[in-house]
This record gives sequence, structure tokens and C-alpha cells, in this order.
Amino acid sequence: MESPKTRAEEKESLRVEMFSDAVFAIAMTLLALDLKVPSLPDGTAMPGLGAALGHQWPSYVAFITSFFTVLIIWLNHHAMFKLVRRVNVRLLLANGLLLMMATVVPFSTELVAEYFQKPGARLACMIYAGIFVLASVFHNPTWYVASHDPGLLADDAPERVVKRITRHYRNGIPIYVIAMLGAFTVPMSPWEFAQGC
Amino acid sequence: MESPKTRAEEKESLRVEMFSDAVFAIAMTLLALDLKVPSLPDGTAMPGLGAALGHQWPSYVAFITSFFTVLIIWLNHHAMFKLVRRVNVRLLLANGLLLMMATVVPFSTELVAEYFQKPGARLACMIYAGIFVLASVFHNPTWYVASHDPGLLADDAPERVVKRITRHYRNGIPIYVIAMLGAFTVPMSPWEFAQGC
Amino acid sequence: MESPKTRAEEKESLRVEMFSDAVFAIAMTLLALDLKVPSLPDGTAMPGLGAALGHQWPSYVAFITSFFTVLIIWLNHHAMFKLVRRVNVRLLLANGLLLMMATVVPFSTELVAEYFQKPGARLACMIYAGIFVLASVFHNPTWYVASHDPGLLADDAPERVVKRITRHYRNGIPIYVIAMLGAFTVPMSPWEFAQGC
Amino acid sequence: MESPKTRAEEKESLRVEMFSDAVFAIAMTLLALDLKVPSLPDGTAMPGLGAALGHQWPSYVAFITSFFTVLIIWLNHHAMFKLVRRVNVRLLLANGLLLMMATVVPFSTELVAEYFQKPGARLACMIYAGIFVLASVFHNPTWYVASHDPGLLADDAPERVVKRITRHYRNGIPIYVIAMLGAFTVPMSPWEFAQGC
Repeated sequence: MESPKTRAEEKESLRVEMFSDAVFAIAMTLLALDLKVPSLPDGTAMPGLGAALGHQWPSYVAFITSFFTVLIIWLNHHAMFKLVRRVNVRLLLANGLLLMMATVVPFSTELVAEYFQKPGARLACMIYAGIFVLASVFHNPTWYVASHDPGLLADDAPERVVKRITRHYRNGIPIYVIAMLGAFTVPMSPWEFAQGC
Repeated sequence: MESPKTRAEEKESLRVEMFSDAVFAIAMTLLALDLKVPSLPDGTAMPGLGAALGHQWPSYVAFITSFFTVLIIWLNHHAMFKLVRRVNVRLLLANGLLLMMATVVPFSTELVAEYFQKPGARLACMIYAGIFVLASVFHNPTWYVASHDPGLLADDAPERVVKRITRHYRNGIPIYVIAMLGAFTVPMSPWEFAQGC
Repeated sequence: MESPKTRAEEKESLRVEMFSDAVFAIAMTLLALDLKVPSLPDGTAMPGLGAALGHQWPSYVAFITSFFTVLIIWLNHHAMFKLVRRVNVRLLLANGLLLMMATVVPFSTELVAEYFQKPGARLACMIYAGIFVLASVFHNPTWYVASHDPGLLADDAPERVVKRITRHYRNGIPIYVIAMLGAFTVPMSPWEFAQGC
Repeated sequence: MESPKTRAEEKESLRVEMFSDAVFAIAMTLLALDLKVPSLPDGTAMPGLGAALGHQWPSYVAFITSFFTVLIIWLNHHAMFKLVRRVNVRLLLANGLLLMMATVVPFSTELVAEYFQKPGARLACMIYAGIFVLASVFHNPTWYVASHDPGLLADDAPERVVKRITRHYRNGIPIYVIAMLGAFTVPMSPWEFAQGC
């Protein structure tokens, strides 16, 4: 028994999810633009291309890492918005902060691929890690608005799921803060392929 | 109690919204292509990358400003189309004008980032501001068609909301005209980071 | 009174429309990548940027022309698919031909903007016009499959509309053929800004 | 007679399809960025542009081949997801592998277009073919999860279709393995335009 109002609201939340999905999908596809076709001087013999492509391996590792990290960010976003039925301006702005980090990933990926094993590698890795840390951090304002502003969550959102997500994010904040501070002194190992940074 | 006809019409309006959302989402993601990985001569010591990235700060400010400005344009578009149920060719063409401005933002953003604090900064800032002014101005023909052509607004669009939007846009027109004229003589402060233009 | 089967089919046709819309939206947004920020030697005085931007006017004309032409192709596609309820592989392949032309438009637009008023302008204009002619021509196989393969059109598609579209496209074929042949000898005036070609 | 739970699940599967569609659509549109406008020295006479464009024919062949191959991958993806109603994390990750291959196609297409008829052509063709082989191979984990994890397939998925797809993919595995091994020794003919590799 759904009223027309409920239908319209559902559509509104769906539109925000689809807008967010489009941003994630484009960011993930643009990642592949960081894979550059090597340009060799004419007349280079066959091993030339193989060696040039092999030399680009940091690009491939960075591409695959970023692709799946953005996919996981999308999964978390997905899980969060499954509970959201209505949206307001505050939610859309908080969500925008999160999306902005996704759009920056192709830049930070190219940065780390370019400066890996060169001077500047440590800074490049810190920026690369920092963008993903910020993407995690920015789930907090989005979820805060969704769960505190009245009437945004779906009526059938199970209360224990809401509490679990809130606890998960709240406990995450000090970890994120430490991680961010740490990212400026010690590189975070999972993101930076230890040897190169 | 919805007739099949109503269902088809709802789907039609949804398709236009989703098409528009895709354009906004792509424009916002392409903005990040303006963030360029600096290319340093081999053997530059570590501060080199940090300094080069720091030197690009106008790019970051322009990126963040443009990202949120397009997000706000999207919000306004969103609010307008929530009231629209059916579309016609005139509405789609007017909407196209609005979308075209969104697609131009990555260009004007790169322009202002590139010429900030250089000769030509003032012109770059005027163009940057001008594109956003035009995006605002072009809400008018879209809303005019939506609210004047018979049968395009949803039957349950609250009349006071329709009137408020109409008044909002109509009052906006002289302001926009003055702003546009002004943009060719005095740069508009919120968009142009006073010092650089 | 809809059966579950009908609901699934409706979703299927919607997915094709949305896929097509995404391609049109991306192509339209990528058009703006053809707008290039001019690079001036450092120390160029202010009129330098204005003159350099003014010099790019064929890019702006080509961008606006292409943007609205793709928008009109999208409108036609939209009108066609409003009548389609189910899809098959043949329809998807025919539709793919049409979409491929949309993806090529940013290339042909850059070509015409680059070679306008240079040697090669006539060829560039012919290619620019040719892509749009092909986009029109490729509506035919899509509509042919949609209207001839049994069960693809919506049951409530008004027969006179179906007949009108069929006639419209069938009469169009000789015109398109002449136009295409003509495009290789005489440039088509509306698309090519007479003076430059 | 649908419960609210069923409606929410349907929406969830739809969101994954739309996300995947967006990735396919963007990858297909980015393919056209591999078509490069030739840059000729000023004052080159008219045949110059025609010859330069003609010289790029491997780009056109590679573009068209890739466009329709990705379209066919999309068709297969489409056919698979028509049977899927609910998604879980494992399905989304497996689907991510498949999507990653689609995003790489613009790179491998540019690679083959660039190195066609040059030293390195054979390697470029092998990589080009290899990406499409991987895209086929990665349908397997996606379908395996969809058909084995309980409750993901639509209740009305016809059992014989499910079995046929499973058999089709299972029988495909040894063929894919042989093809992949072969791709490293003998170039696969349909993808590589025999003469150039």
C-alpha cells in the first residue's frame, strides 16, 4: 500500500544513487586513461615494445589497486544508500564531498605511477593513500546526515544495522585521524607497494 | 490508481533527468582531468615534486570551486525536474542549453587555473564566472517551458512552489543581466579569488 | 493489470535506452574536450589570451553545432524507443551502429575545428557532415528491426505513428543516399559554415 | 503480489546492471578518443589531410572492432544479469573483474592501432586479443557466484537456461585456457587482421 508521495520519494533517492554511480563508473573508467601507449622511435626492434610495456608495471599495479579500491568505496556507498529513502540538500552536499574524492583518484593514481621509484615517491604515495583515507573519512558526514536528519532513512531500515554502521564509522574516526597523521610521517603499507616509496 | 499512460509519461521524464544527470556527472568527473601530474626532469630531488604540486594550487581551488558549483547547479536542476512529469521538444532543447554550460565548465576551469596570476587572468576569470552566470540564466527558458506549456508539470506539483520558483527566476533575470554586463567590466568576487584576477 | 513477464520486458527496453543515453551523454560531454586552453609564451600581454581565444572561434561554432546535432539525434532516438518495449540481439546491434556514430562526433568535430580555413577544410567538412548523415541513415536498420521483428513494439504503440515513422525513414533513404554522394562532391551547406570549407 | 522486500532487491540488482552499463558505455565512447586528428605542418596542400587520415586506417579498423566486441560483451553481460535478482559482495567483486577488462579496451585498442605494421605488432595483437579473452574468461566467476550462491537468481529464471549458460561457460574454460596459451605463441586470427601482426 504505497501512497504517491512514497513513490516520488523513492525515485528521488534512486536518482542520487544513480548520479553517484555514474561518478564512480566514470572515475573507474578514466583510471584506464593512465595506461599510456609507449612511444618508441621508429625502427626499434620487437623486444623494444615488450620492455617498454614491462617498464610501466607500476602503472598496472596502481590501476588495478585503484580500480578495486574505488569499487569497494562504491560497495560501501551502495550499502549506505540502501537504507536511505529521502534526501535533502545537506545529504547531497556531504555526498558530494565523497564523490569528489572518487573523481580525484585517476589523478593520484597517475601521480603514484609516474613517481614510483623516483625522487618524490614517498610524497606521491602519501597523497595516493591520503585520497583513499579522505574518501573513507567523508563517509562520516554523509552517514551522519542520513541517520540524524529526520525522515531520510527508509522506514524499514533495521535499527541494529543503523546502529552498527554508526558505531563502525564513529570508531573509525580516531583511526582515520591517526592514519592521516601517520600518512604524513610513515607511509601506509597496503597502498604504497613498500619498495617503491 | 495510475493508468498505463501515466506510467509511460513518468518514465519519459525520468529518462530526461537521468540523461541530464549523466551529463552533470561526466562534467564533474572530467574536471579532475584538469589536475595535471607535474613532469619533472629526471634526478630532481624530493622537494621538487612537493614544490611543483604546491605551485598548482590554483588548479585545486578551481577544481573544488567548480565541482561544488556544478553540484549546486545539479541540485537546482533536480529541484526543478521533481515538479516535471512530461517533456516536449521545447523543454528538451531548453534543457540542452543548460547542459551545454555544464559541459563547458572543465574548459573554463582549466582556463582559469592556467592563467591565474598571469596576464589574461582577468579575462579568464570573467569567462569562468560568465559560464556559471549563463548556467543560471539558462534555467529560465527551461522553467518557462516547463511551467507554461500545458501538461508538463506533475499534477501534484504544489502551486505555491511553482509560483515561488517562477518568481525566483523572474526576479533573477535583471540580476543576471547586470551580473553579465558587470562580468565584462568588474570581475565577480566569489568566483575569482580576488588576488589572482 | 501487468504480469511479471511484462514488467521484466519493460525493464529490458529501459536498460537499452539508458545505455544509449549514457553513450549520447558522454559523447556530448567529451565534445567540450575539443575546446583547448591556448598556451601562450610567458610574459604575453593581456590581449594575447583574448586574441588566442578569439582565434579559436571555429572550435566554438563546431562545438555548439555538434552539441545540438547530437541532442537532436538523441531526441529522435528517444522518440523511436518510446514505442519499443522489448529488444532482441538484432535491434541491439543495429542500435550499436547508431551509437557508434555518436561516439565519433567528438573526433569529426575536432577535425573540422582544426582544419577550418586551412588546406583540407573541404575534406574535414565532408567528413563532419558524413558522420551526421550516417547517424541519420543508421536510424533505418534500428527502426526496421524494431517494427518488423515480431513483438518488439509496445502493444499500445499507435499504428499511425508507426506508419508515419516507417514512411519518414523510407522516404529518407534516397535523400540520404543523394546527400552522401553529394557530400563527396559538393559540401552540404548547413553543416559546414560555407566560407571556411 | 510483490512484498516490499522483493521490490528493494529488484532495485539492487538493477543498480548493479546500470553501474555496469555505465562502465561499458564510457569504455565504448572513450574508444573514439583513440581517433587522433592528424597534425600537419602549415601550408600542406589538400591531399595532405586525406593521405594522413588514410594512413590511420588501422585506428579505424581497431575502433570498429573494439566497439562491436565491447557491445557483444555487454550483450552477454545483459543476458546473464537478466537472470540475476539479488547481488552480494562476491558477485560485485567478480563483476568488477569483468568490468575492469572493458575499461582496458581503449588502451589495448590504441596499442594495436599504434604498433600495427611496426616492430612489436605481434605483441600488441596478442595483448589486444588477450584482453578480450580475459573478458570472456571473467564471465565465469561472475556466473559461478550468481548461480551457486543461494538466492541470487530470479525465482522465475528458467532452469534449462541456467543449465545451458553453466554448460556453455564450463565448456568454454579449457578453450579459453588453450586460447590464452595460444595467444602467447600463435596470434589469434579473428582479432588481429592477419597481415599486420
